[in-house]
Amino acid sequence: MRRAMEQARLDALVLRLPENVLLLTGFWPMIGAATLVFPREGEATLVAPDYFSVEVETSLLHGVPRYYRFGVLGAGKPADAVFKALSDLAAGSNWRRIGYEGSFSMIAPSWHSGEALVPVESTRDYYAAAFTGAELVDATTLIQNERRTKTAFEIEKLRITGEISSIGLEAFQNAVEPGLTGVELVALVEHAVMTKGTGYKGATRVRAYAQVATGAKETAIGYRMHEISTMRPLQNGDVALLELGVVADGYWADRTRARVAGTASDEQLRAFDVLKQAQEASCKAIRPGATGAEVDEAGRRIIREAGYGDLFPHITGHGLGFGYHEDSPHLAPDSKDVLEPGTLSSVEPGIYSQEFGGFRIEDDVLVTAHGHEILGAFEKQL
Amino acid sequence: MRRAMEQARLDALVLRLPENVLLLTGFWPMIGAATLVFPREGEATLVAPDYFSVEVETSLLHGVPRYYRFGVLGAGKPADAVFKALSDLAAGSNWRRIGYEGSFSMIAPSWHSGEALVPVESTRDYYAAAFTGAELVDATTLIQNERRTKTAFEIEKLRITGEISSIGLEAFQNAVEPGLTGVELVALVEHAVMTKGTGYKGATRVRAYAQVATGAKETAIGYRMHEISTMRPLQNGDVALLELGVVADGYWADRTRARVAGTASDEQLRAFDVLKQAQEASCKAIRPGATGAEVDEAGRRIIREAGYGDLFPHITGHGLGFGYHEDSPHLAPDSKDVLEPGTLSSVEPGIYSQEFGGFRIEDDVLVTAHGHEILGAFEKQL
Repeated sequence: MRRAMEQARLDALVLRLPENVLLLTGFWPMIGAATLVFPREGEATLVAPDYFSVEVETSLLHGVPRYYRFGVLGAGKPADAVFKALSDLAAGSNWRRIGYEGSFSMIAPSWHSGEALVPVESTRDYYAAAFTGAELVDATTLIQNERRTKTAFEIEKLRITGEISSIGLEAFQNAVEPGLTGVELVALVEHAVMTKGTGYKGATRVRAYAQVATGAKETAIGYRMHEISTMRPLQNGDVALLELGVVADGYWADRTRARVAGTASDEQLRAFDVLKQAQEASCKAIRPGATGAEVDEAGRRIIREAGYGDLFPHITGHGLGFGYHEDSPHLAPDSKDVLEPGTLSSVEPGIYSQEFGGFRIEDDVLVTAHGHEILGAFEKQL
Repeated sequence: MRRAMEQARLDALVLRLPENVLLLTGFWPMIGAATLVFPREGEATLVAPDYFSVEVETSLLHGVPRYYRFGVLGAGKPADAVFKALSDLAAGSNWRRIGYEGSFSMIAPSWHSGEALVPVESTRDYYAAAFTGAELVDATTLIQNERRTKTAFEIEKLRITGEISSIGLEAFQNAVEPGLTGVELVALVEHAVMTKGTGYKGATRVRAYAQVATGAKETAIGYRMHEISTMRPLQNGDVALLELGVVADGYWADRTRARVAGTASDEQLRAFDVLKQAQEASCKAIRPGATGAEVDEAGRRIIREAGYGDLFPHITGHGLGFGYHEDSPHLAPDSKDVLEPGTLSSVEPGIYSQEFGGFRIEDDVLVTAHGHEILGAFEKQL
């Protein structure tokens, strides 16, 4: 990050999205109420509510905390306390250009997730008043670029999230049967991830976001950003399609599995087998130097040659890690993104039929020195 | 809203936060990918991904939809499609001043909640390019003011969410016992709300966010924005403190209950009884014309006179409805906010002891024509 800041002639960053505080400190704020001042030279300062102190002290890898009283009568406004801290830091510096999070449009929720605190226009005004005389620069692209390639520390964390997400896939696999609804499956999967995932290899804050569409009509809509889970009971032969986002201590996994309740038809079995081959071919194509288009085509060719080309209308995958979805690397027919060790993508081809239903298989695949690694590998059975 | 726009000399609003699209259309987008153009005169237009069409057509009360293809190969960038739609609407108008969501810093998540799409600086640039020549005005305060007083339609929806949140309180009440962990209680409460709340009086999209702190050390920290749920098993005599946010079709409830696992001590029973009296006194003080300070004092006096004044360090309540927390009406010792029919606040005093643990009781209370109504009233038992 400091090399990138030097190139961009930035003297400091001021950040408050939990995902970016995590990136630079190892500490994942529960909500965007902790502000990190990260100078190009010298130590970073995390300005945080005092009630975060236990979590800060157990996870902060870089920087020193500075606490303010929060949420109690007489504490004053949090904004005033943060403003004071930023002003103090500015007074002791000669920073001229300061980067901030001006355009993070898609943001990852915190553990709490009831709501998100995001930087807005008044945040920038507030920074401008604290860092008087400095130029404020929207550093969104710079930060996103630095998030793209994961460090060894981050890979270990992402591997844990991948394994925890497989707990959800297993719960789904074991539960699907006629009579259950999509909503019941969602609740059951989220329950399993939270109760079995918390504490797994040291993970302390775990949450799942599941969606389960059921039957041909719901699932054939295909690739929506968000499935709709309903109270419609599964019928014998219906497909159930699980889309599962999991966050563990700020690191994300994005998985999908499909199951048929009761007995699958020959057509369903055939399409699923084609899809499985395609998904595995795209995974195998992942290595340093491969382009997003090559990885996409490796799987898409198999689906096309089996006659299902029109039923796979979307891209093969997207980046992720500090969020459920990130732009890069993009795996799609027109993608010139070149993979390198440490980049992470979802691989998620699908086949969606109005007759037999919609299927998708999704894993998160890391680029290694010479090939790839599936994080939290888990079987695929219709 | 149109009266407020006239006063502020705004010719149109352009909105994309799900909570604000809900406010003006009755439709709750799954994520911030639907843009509403709401003119002061004439019909509103909702620019939305085509895969939202089923939900749009079943819930849109105001405005006409205009769809764009989304998420499939060849559809182009969503931003380009929305830009085209906004440019078309601008071309047919003579709007000079357009309000937008420049400073919504705390936002409510969508149903999906894996991530939020929020308006940022590049969003404003994008609006400026579409509405060439018009002045863009940050309308955050105007919109927040219009959200404060709930309509009859909204009250009916909020009542349903309140009743659904009581499903979570009941599940908690029945489950707390020695040996269970906070994380297990969270998962169990969220499971109950989702499976029993979906379909309740027509609610289609329901999600709970629970946190359960256990034991004196965790609960005595008191009023944090977010409890920490851990894998610590409840011991006999430990308090379990549930903080519960529930959203049903975009309308929020915010509830809290405390329980003791096994046998409560006399001191716990006494403090809880004082707290219950205080919470009920503040609820009863809610009526048109009462100030936030009066409502706060009605309960705080009881806690103070029982000798627990120092153990109740926070405000009595906050507004809510289109989000889990909203600023107004604010119930606190220094609050001059005047209640009026249709405003909604949490009422949530607490007593937090290092010795016997922390308790809080929270309900959401609507101001009616002559008094108050607790949404989803539910018993309070330690």
